[in-house]
Amino acid sequence: MSADTPSDRVDGLLELRNKLRTFAAERDWEKFHSPKNIAIALSVEASELLERFQWLTEAESRSLPSTTLAQVREEMADVLLYLVILADKLDVNLVDATRMKLEVNALKYPVESARGNSKKYTDL
Amino acid sequence: MSADTPSDRVDGLLELRNKLRTFAAERDWEKFHSPKNIAIALSVEASELLERFQWLTEAESRSLPSTTLAQVREEMADVLLYLVILADKLDVNLVDATRMKLEVNALKYPVESARGNSKKYTDL
Amino acid sequence: MSADTPSDRVDGLLELRNKLRTFAAERDWEKFHSPKNIAIALSVEASELLERFQWLTEAESRSLPSTTLAQVREEMADVLLYLVILADKLDVNLVDATRMKLEVNALKYPVESARGNSKKYTDL
Amino acid sequence: MSADTPSDRVDGLLELRNKLRTFAAERDWEKFHSPKNIAIALSVEASELLERFQWLTEAESRSLPSTTLAQVREEMADVLLYLVILADKLDVNLVDATRMKLEVNALKYPVESARGNSKKYTDL
Repeated sequence: MSADTPSDRVDGLLELRNKLRTFAAERDWEKFHSPKNIAIALSVEASELLERFQWLTEAESRSLPSTTLAQVREEMADVLLYLVILADKLDVNLVDATRMKLEVNALKYPVESARGNSKKYTDL
Repeated sequence: MSADTPSDRVDGLLELRNKLRTFAAERDWEKFHSPKNIAIALSVEASELLERFQWLTEAESRSLPSTTLAQVREEMADVLLYLVILADKLDVNLVDATRMKLEVNALKYPVESARGNSKKYTDL
Repeated sequence: MSADTPSDRVDGLLELRNKLRTFAAERDWEKFHSPKNIAIALSVEASELLERFQWLTEAESRSLPSTTLAQVREEMADVLLYLVILADKLDVNLVDATRMKLEVNALKYPVESARGNSKKYTDL
Repeated sequence: MSADTPSDRVDGLLELRNKLRTFAAERDWEKFHSPKNIAIALSVEASELLERFQWLTEAESRSLPSTTLAQVREEMADVLLYLVILADKLDVNLVDATRMKLEVNALKYPVESARGNSKKYTDL
């Protein structure tokens, strides 16, 4: 990352948002991009990502062959694309929202009781 | 955003990655975090996001009440959390992957033929 | 259906279950068929079904072209296949389980308060 | 099953369809039940089912505690409910569709080449 230009480093998500705006505008796709439709598309892409792991063991999923990894990488990109579009439509700052969620999670899953188990917080 | 410190501005996703590493390590959760399991969790969260829009019309989804928007924001955060964890496990640079995917999409959906329709590229 | 043999009519789901057992056994696929993996596959197929409706309006989804309907039909079959496999693994009687769930739902959504709105029962 | 009345045995799915028609009509819910919305709901329920298995190992998923099994059973019922509603809206015979899909799958995954591996048929 050392050679990034400052503007490049400043905000990858903002850059993506701007590119996606142009992309949709050039194709006149905004009419399809209701938040409901984008949420559907995001969920469909998350499932396509999951499909890549479907019949693998957990151990196998930890050491993917390079062709699978390339496919997984592409599906992850699709998820992020739709997440950024949805954030743009709803005027959500993704990084801020996630920072706040992490703080909520820290309260829900205190280190002592959550340590080493995966129970849902309501069962802790 | 004008008051962000440079280090804050440089990389929100990197900051999230670091916080998530600490979060999982403190709770000894890495053993649950096989890429397969994270992909499942990501897909489940994307569906919880979709659930918020489930019975809304597209028009309603364009003007969410503030309580729904707050829930949607939180579900979006969950999606990004798992996406960042997965990217960390698989050593994927999310912004680079998405930049590349956008270039692929630009070839798949040329402005002329994609304009105003939502057909899958194989049908164009 | 008038020409169905009695045994054919008696239990379509049971017939499917038996065929699916043979199908998996002949291919030595039981080792992949942990309930967890089947639940993943079911979710992936449900998303492929949803994908067919992704960019349609609700009105369009009410009058599908025949080619789309054929694809939708096939995805619905995939969902049922995995649901029947999972029910078999877990010894669940699908029709009984669904009868019971309908009774639960009737209590959760009383006719008077649920009439004409789609609120979750916790919000009624 | 020995004490089932013949009409009861003949068609559990048909019985469910009829009950679901009444259920939706009494609550004036047909207006929400576009095939697109039902496909969303089905996908959301399939994810709720998957969520029950999310952090379990495959081995654990093969021997669920009874409380988890009860939850799983209920989520499976929800999936079938929406699948039957969708089939009704689209005039699809679920058992016939699934029989046909099994025949297609038998051609796609010949016993000899599919034996013991989980590759997608395009990779066989």
